[in-house]
Formats: sequence, structure tokens, C-alpha cells
Amino acid sequence: MKTVKEILQTKQTGLITIAPDATVFDALKLMAEKNIGALPVMDGEKLLGILTERDYSRKVILEGKSSKETLVKEIMTEKVLIVKPETTNEECMALMSEKFLRHLLVIKSDGAIGIISIGDVVKAITSEQHFAINNLNKYIIRLRKQGQNSLNSGHKNIQNTLATMRDYIPSSRNYTI
Amino acid sequence: MKTVKEILQTKQTGLITIAPDATVFDALKLMAEKNIGALPVMDGEKLLGILTERDYSRKVILEGKSSKETLVKEIMTEKVLIVKPETTNEECMALMSEKFLRHLLVIKSDGAIGIISIGDVVKAITSEQHFAINNLNKYIIRLRKQGQNSLNSGHKNIQNTLATMRDYIPSSRNYTI
Repeated sequence: MKTVKEILQTKQTGLITIAPDATVFDALKLMAEKNIGALPVMDGEKLLGILTERDYSRKVILEGKSSKETLVKEIMTEKVLIVKPETTNEECMALMSEKFLRHLLVIKSDGAIGIISIGDVVKAITSEQHFAINNLNKYIIRLRKQGQNSLNSGHKNIQNTLATMRDYIPSSRNYTI
Repeated sequence: MKTVKEILQTKQTGLITIAPDATVFDALKLMAEKNIGALPVMDGEKLLGILTERDYSRKVILEGKSSKETLVKEIMTEKVLIVKPETTNEECMALMSEKFLRHLLVIKSDGAIGIISIGDVVKAITSEQHFAINNLNKYIIRLRKQGQNSLNSGHKNIQNTLATMRDYIPSSRNYTI
């Protein structure tokens, strides 16, 4: 089962973050430039929250604010779900489904921050479950082959025994298997 | 393998759409109210495109527009990926991963429109693959049991044969299995 650590290793882009006092407009520019949909909000090395396209869609114009005058810290989601590097992708998937989240934050063993999206987890889960199914299929083929070999060898043993018996026991001559 | 049709059947909310001449602001209000992130854009019964939070985040303020003065048709994504009711969830997943999409539109057999999100497909794939793995595991347990039974019965046959031989063939008395 793939872990968050392994998923992070497959990601090509490094961590892109935003400061809490940046404007939402600047955050949008950065997201567009990097083609991403969420930014961890960091005050130096301290994680304060996450800013997503969902926050922008729900908490700016609908609340009478403007992106150029609103700061990231005003609309960011402070309650973030943090997972560990050793959290499995299935656990991530369950969390994302349950909490309707598209992103999870990770605190690595050295304290550094990572982020994984629903797309990352899906890719990992899909490839991993394909791998599991393939392995199980191979195992079944092997088991069936072994079973056949055991039956064949048991059959051969009994045939040999019968052949021996036939030499010694007249009544066994009518039996075949 | 679950199909788009089956995934649509598990969704609780009906289809929520927006007209092309509605303002982006109205679309945002509707998305917030229904807690969704994308709206098929329909002119009567004709599908024109899709409006997502991504369109809003990238094509309004960053292009100097405002959500109250911009119409849905100005920023919607016209090129939509349409899948069939019989498309499998694995095919959907592959499409979403490849094209970096979070939503796919569906045209049902009666011409009605449906929408499925990456979350819907993930939920379906995860439950389905769990089901496949469980079934394969059960099958392996059955195969192993059958194999053991075959071996046991072969073993018993040989023991019986040996027992018979012992009665007739003095030289067989030293053999056990």
C-alpha cells in the first residue's frame, strides 16, 4: 500500500506556498501561473492554513469582498487536515471522501510541509489496486497450477501403486483410475 | 465494473444547471447554495459547456473582469468531455487523469444531461476494487481449501491402498506415507 511519502516522491513540482498577508488576487495569480488549485498558507515556516479555489469562490464576492483588497488570511481555511508521511493512500482517500476535501497537508519527518491532491491519491490508488489485482490473479494461476501438479503427482502415485498391486493381487486387475 | 449510469444512480442530488446569460455572480451563488463546484451550461435543452470554480478563478479577476458584469457564456469551458452511460468508471478515471478534469458530462439515452465529479468516480472505483480484491481473496481461500481436500483425499487413497498392499505384499510393510 502506497504511503503519503511515496506519493509525494512521485510529484514533480516542489511545494508552492503563499504568505497570509498576500492578497487573494496575488494568490490567484500564483495558482494560475503554477496551474494548481490550492496553496498552503505559511508564515515563515509556520503552517497557518490552506487557500483553495473553493475558498475564493465562496468567501470573496459572495461576501461583498474583492480579491485585491482581501488578504489570504481572511479567507483561508484554518482547520486543515494533516496526515503523516506514513499515512496510506487508502486512509487519505477515506478522509477526503468523508470530509469532502480535495487536498491534504503533510508534515514530513523533518518538519517540512507537503500537499497532496485528490488527483494524486486517485492516481496512486488506481495504480496500486491494479497491481494488487494483478498479483492476486497471478497467485491464483500459480495455485491452480500447483493444485493440478499435486493432483497429477497423486494420480501418478496411485497408478504406480495399482501397477504394483496388479503384479501381486489378482483382484486388483479390474481397477484403473 | 461500474458504469457511468450506475454512478449517476447513486447520486442524491438531481442535475443543477445554469443559463449562458446568467452572470458569473449568480452562478457562484447557485454553486454555494447547492454546495457544488461545477454547473453544466444549458440553453433550454441544449448543452453549451460547463462552468467550474477553475473557470471563475482563472478567467474573471485575472483578466480584469468582474463576476457581476461577466456572463457565464463568456468564461465557461465550451469543450466538454462527454461520456456515455455505459462508459466505465475506469475509463472516466483515465480521462480525468489524462485531461486534468474534475468533471465529466454525460448524455443519457433519453438525451438528458448528467454530471459526474472526480469524487463520484473515486468513490465508485474504490468500492469496486475493494469488492474485486475481496472476491479474489475469497476465491484463493476456496482454491486452497479445495487443494487441501484433494491432497487429503489423495493421501487417504494411498493410505488405503498401502493398507491393502500390506495385507498382500510383505515387502510393503515398511512403507508409510
